[in-house]
Amino acid sequence: MKIVKPSYVILQWPKNGLEIIEEAGRTCYKSEDKITETSAEAFVKTILKRGHESVIEHAVATVKIVCDRGVSHELVRHRLASYSQESTRYCAYKKGIAVVSPFQEETSGAYLDWKSVCEIAEQSYLRLLERGVSPQIARSVLPISLKTEIVITANFREWRHIFRLRTSKAAHPMIRSIMLSICEDFAKRAPALFEEFVV
Amino acid sequence: MKIVKPSYVILQWPKNGLEIIEEAGRTCYKSEDKITETSAEAFVKTILKRGHESVIEHAVATVKIVCDRGVSHELVRHRLASYSQESTRYCAYKKGIAVVSPFQEETSGAYLDWKSVCEIAEQSYLRLLERGVSPQIARSVLPISLKTEIVITANFREWRHIFRLRTSKAAHPMIRSIMLSICEDFAKRAPALFEEFVV
Amino acid sequence: MKIVKPSYVILQWPKNGLEIIEEAGRTCYKSEDKITETSAEAFVKTILKRGHESVIEHAVATVKIVCDRGVSHELVRHRLASYSQESTRYCAYKKGIAVVSPFQEETSGAYLDWKSVCEIAEQSYLRLLERGVSPQIARSVLPISLKTEIVITANFREWRHIFRLRTSKAAHPMIRSIMLSICEDFAKRAPALFEEFVV
Amino acid sequence: MKIVKPSYVILQWPKNGLEIIEEAGRTCYKSEDKITETSAEAFVKTILKRGHESVIEHAVATVKIVCDRGVSHELVRHRLASYSQESTRYCAYKKGIAVVSPFQEETSGAYLDWKSVCEIAEQSYLRLLERGVSPQIARSVLPISLKTEIVITANFREWRHIFRLRTSKAAHPMIRSIMLSICEDFAKRAPALFEEFVV
Repeated sequence: MKIVKPSYVILQWPKNGLEIIEEAGRTCYKSEDKITETSAEAFVKTILKRGHESVIEHAVATVKIVCDRGVSHELVRHRLASYSQESTRYCAYKKGIAVVSPFQEETSGAYLDWKSVCEIAEQSYLRLLERGVSPQIARSVLPISLKTEIVITANFREWRHIFRLRTSKAAHPMIRSIMLSICEDFAKRAPALFEEFVV
Repeated sequence: MKIVKPSYVILQWPKNGLEIIEEAGRTCYKSEDKITETSAEAFVKTILKRGHESVIEHAVATVKIVCDRGVSHELVRHRLASYSQESTRYCAYKKGIAVVSPFQEETSGAYLDWKSVCEIAEQSYLRLLERGVSPQIARSVLPISLKTEIVITANFREWRHIFRLRTSKAAHPMIRSIMLSICEDFAKRAPALFEEFVV
Repeated sequence: MKIVKPSYVILQWPKNGLEIIEEAGRTCYKSEDKITETSAEAFVKTILKRGHESVIEHAVATVKIVCDRGVSHELVRHRLASYSQESTRYCAYKKGIAVVSPFQEETSGAYLDWKSVCEIAEQSYLRLLERGVSPQIARSVLPISLKTEIVITANFREWRHIFRLRTSKAAHPMIRSIMLSICEDFAKRAPALFEEFVV
Repeated sequence: MKIVKPSYVILQWPKNGLEIIEEAGRTCYKSEDKITETSAEAFVKTILKRGHESVIEHAVATVKIVCDRGVSHELVRHRLASYSQESTRYCAYKKGIAVVSPFQEETSGAYLDWKSVCEIAEQSYLRLLERGVSPQIARSVLPISLKTEIVITANFREWRHIFRLRTSKAAHPMIRSIMLSICEDFAKRAPALFEEFVV
C-alpha cells in the first residue's frame, strides 16, 4: 500500500486569456477601438467590479488533482466543468492500492488506526480479485481514502466559484488545502482574476 | 452494522406531463388548435421520432435512491440534474453504519470477506469518533459500500439519457439494477417516453 | 397587423414544492425525523439564509411568456432552463404579423413612427412570401418588435436568479415589467422563496 | 446602411488539444505509460469510436461570428457554451446600422424589397434616437437582418454537436453556411475530431 499526498498539476492554461476576455467583452459594447497592448488587465478588473462575469468564461484552465475518493465526490458536484477520473471499474489494482491520508501527523493513534484499516481493506480487495471477483465489485471494500486522479477543465468564472466555496473555512480540510494551492498558483498567472481568493 | 438493499422511491411526478410537453411543443409551430383531450401521447411519440427532444425537458421527475457511495459517485456525474445527498461530513454515524452489498448470494466466501471488512471499518470509524476525530475525517476509513441516500431531480430528456447509459449491459450491476427498476416504473406512468428502455 | 401586450401564464407549478425541498434537504443531514406537517416553510427559509440553494432546485415551474423577439433573445441567454419558442422558420404569418409595442403611450410621435415601420415590414414580409420566398428568409425584414411566445421551465433556484437580474432597474423595461408580474405571482404561491424580489 | 457578409474568425484554439485529451482520457484507465509523441491522434479516434465523448470536453475553441440577429438567436440556444454578443441595448448606432443579406443574388426583386425595408427601418431608428428615445427602445424597429457579432467559446464535444445540427440540410441557410466554413477550418486543425462533418 502506497500512501500519497494530495497534489495537483496545471495541464492547460490559456495563452492569451486576458486578451480573449477583453476582445469578447468589448464585442458587447463595440468598444474594440479602446484595446491597447496593456489594456486587458484593467478591463478585466472593471468587468469583475460590475459583476459582468459571463465574459470571463472565455478563458479555461485544466488541472489534474490527486486526492481521495471522498474529495473527488465533492469535486464532481460542480456541474459546470468537465471531468475525467481514474475509474475504479476499469482499473484493477493488482499490485495494491494507494491511499491519501486525512491526517497531518503520521504518528497519532488515529493515524495508525486509519492506516491499519486501509491495509486490511487492501488485503481483502486483493483476495477478492484472486477469487475471480471483478474490480468493479471488489472496489466495494476499498476505503474512501482511496487515492484517485481527476482531470478538471473549467472556465475562469467557474474556477472563481469553486475557489470561493472550497477555500472557505467551512470546506473539507483536504479540498481546502488543495484549492488554496491551486488558487495561489492561478493568482500568480492572473492576479486580476484570482488574487482575491488567496488567504 | 446494517446491511440494506438498493432501493428507490419516486418523490415527484408531473401532474400533466404529456399535456405540458404538447403545449410547449405546439408553441414552436403555433399549432395549439390541434390539441384535443387525447392528442398528447401521439404528439410526444411524433416529437421523439423527429428527435426534437428539447420539448420533453418541460416535464421533470424526482427520485430518491438508496445505493452505495460508489454508485452515487457515478450518478452525480450526470451534470444536467439536481442532487441532494446524505453527507458524510455532516452526518455522524454514532450508532454504526449501513452498507449495501454488491453480492447477490449471501453465503459466498467473497460475501463473507466483504462483510468482515465492512465491520472492521465500522469499528475503526466509531473508535476514531471516540478519539475526538470529526466525522468528515473519520469517514476516510469507511468502505465504498457505505449506504447513501440521494435525491435526484431531472427532466425527462435527461432521465431518458440516464436510462440509455445506465441500463446498458456495460453499466455497473448495481446502478443497472436500480435504473432498470426505475425505468420500468416510469414506463408504466408514461409509456410513450420510457417504454423503449425496458428490457 | 395585431398589436399585443406582453403577458404570461403559469403552465406548471409543483404540487408539494416546499415539502419536496424539505425532504431533499433533510436527506443531506438525515434529519427527516424533524419533518412535521408545517415544518417545510421554516426549513426553506433556513436553507436560503445559509445559502444552501442547491436544495431548492428540486422544485420547478413552467411559464409561457408573450414578448417581443428582443426580449426573448435575452431570456434564452439563461442557460439553466428549458425553452420552446415560436419559430420564425416553421411559422408562416400569411395573415399578417403580431407585434409588441415598446411604448407605454399610444399617441406619441415615437409610437406612430414605430407602428408605421412595423406595418411596412409586414407588407414587405407578405410580398416576399407571395414571391415564393420561404418564411425563414422572409423573416429577415420583420422588426425586433415581432411578437413571440416562449415556454420556459426552470427550477426555483434559477427563477430566483432570473428575478434578481431581470427585476433590477438596469434591466430592459419590457423584461422587467414581465418579470415583476411573474415574481409577484410566484411570491403569492411561495412567499418564503420569492417575496424578497417583489418591489 | 452597410451591408456585410456573414463571416467568422477563430480567436482561440487549444495549443496541445489532442495531447490534453489523451492525458485526460488515459487518467481514467491509468494507461499513461502508453503515451508516445504520436499516440494522441489514434487515441482520440478510438475514444470517439467508443462514444466516450466526455473526454474531448477538455479542449476548447473560441470563434467570433458575424451574422444576423435571427441566426444569433438560434446560436445562443446551445446552452453548453459561453457567449458575448454585441448589445442592442448598450450600442447606439448613431451613424446607421449594418445588416446581413439573406439573399445570394443582389439584383432580384426580393433582394431589393429587403434592402428597401432595412433602409426605412434605419431611418426610423435614427429618428427615434433624435426624439430622445433610448437605443434599447429604438431597437424595436430594426429588422432581424441587423448585423450582430457574437463570440462563442465551446468545448470540442459541443462544437461537434453544433456542427452535427447546424450543417444539416434542415438548418437555416445562413447558419449552415457559416458552420460549414468553421467546421472545415476546424477539420484542417484537428481532422480526427471534425473531418466527419465536412461535406
